[in-house]
Amino acid sequence: MTIGRFIALEGGEGAGKSTQARMLAAELAARGIPCRMTREPGGTPGAEAIRALLLGTDGEGWHPRAEALLFAAARSDHVERLIRPALAGGEWVICDRFVDSSRAYQGGAGGLSDRDVMALHAIGSEGLLPDLTLLFEVRPDVARSRLAVRDGEVADRIGGRDTSYHAAVAAAFARFATDEPERFARIDANDDAESVAARVIAALAPLLERA
Amino acid sequence: MTIGRFIALEGGEGAGKSTQARMLAAELAARGIPCRMTREPGGTPGAEAIRALLLGTDGEGWHPRAEALLFAAARSDHVERLIRPALAGGEWVICDRFVDSSRAYQGGAGGLSDRDVMALHAIGSEGLLPDLTLLFEVRPDVARSRLAVRDGEVADRIGGRDTSYHAAVAAAFARFATDEPERFARIDANDDAESVAARVIAALAPLLERA
Repeated sequence: MTIGRFIALEGGEGAGKSTQARMLAAELAARGIPCRMTREPGGTPGAEAIRALLLGTDGEGWHPRAEALLFAAARSDHVERLIRPALAGGEWVICDRFVDSSRAYQGGAGGLSDRDVMALHAIGSEGLLPDLTLLFEVRPDVARSRLAVRDGEVADRIGGRDTSYHAAVAAAFARFATDEPERFARIDANDDAESVAARVIAALAPLLERA
Repeated sequence: MTIGRFIALEGGEGAGKSTQARMLAAELAARGIPCRMTREPGGTPGAEAIRALLLGTDGEGWHPRAEALLFAAARSDHVERLIRPALAGGEWVICDRFVDSSRAYQGGAGGLSDRDVMALHAIGSEGLLPDLTLLFEVRPDVARSRLAVRDGEVADRIGGRDTSYHAAVAAAFARFATDEPERFARIDANDDAESVAARVIAALAPLLERA
């Protein structure tokens, strides 16, 4: 049995990450590759409890440092109890958001330094990084029209922040991809889901050949 | 208006910290010193919500790294929203447990390095330290008999750990006090509450003279 591969999907709201995570999991299953689909914050009972604290829209909210610590705590539980065991058991892990979201949201857009976000990740999760991070990039108007389709869904505390915040998030993601071209694949996610899914499979080809 | 003083009370379970915190707050009030009594984990609505996650006895519990991150997140909220504003407003803050508890429980006894615990504190709370940390030291048999008096109180997830864990906690606290004699006052807490309270006031004399 070989060790599984760890694939993270990243990008702003409305980039199509969750849809693409489902399509990728189905494609891997069709190829006979055992696979776990999960998401952050969350994925384990403990991390989901922290998610409820983080994204709830009641109360005073969290200032950026407390928010970063809570994300790191949720990730720590998720890595220890789901991601590492699944990988060790030979499964591929498809994760909707991972540490680069913390770097982009609490770091790039939230005022924490990237060094601090990565220090929290080192302490909480021994610095685990995905084998490949798929960065879904869309124009703001495309993201807005996709979000508008989510009927009746109330924006959570983070998704509900303003345009300049989301622009800072997108810029941060693009910077990470430039800085670590080996770990990132940038996916043009402006088109229909099937076209984007084909780009995902193309980006995964080197890993799939070795699976 | 002068800035307030920050006094933390530390020690293992059954050392009498909560009783001494109340007695100290009453004594300061009697001297006309404005004072806030608080505790960790908790002290603010956000931190109390994290406390419920941390000390609840249901579910799988937290592994030490996630636990340390959650304590640091609760502390971050507490420092930002209660402790710093109170100190800036000229109040004394009397805090039942602070970062040295994380150092002793998640560090000394829980397997995290002291460096990691202090890194979390630097990121979460800009490394705020008390002006004085009162370390209440009791013999194990005294602690046990005090805890037995807490009728019907179920040990929480951390208080319920075994004897060797609590011995490691006590040893860690003693080491911190030896390493930072200026910031710590070791209080023999084996006697009745009034005798211990008198020792507390004696230890605080240098700060009280300047208040």
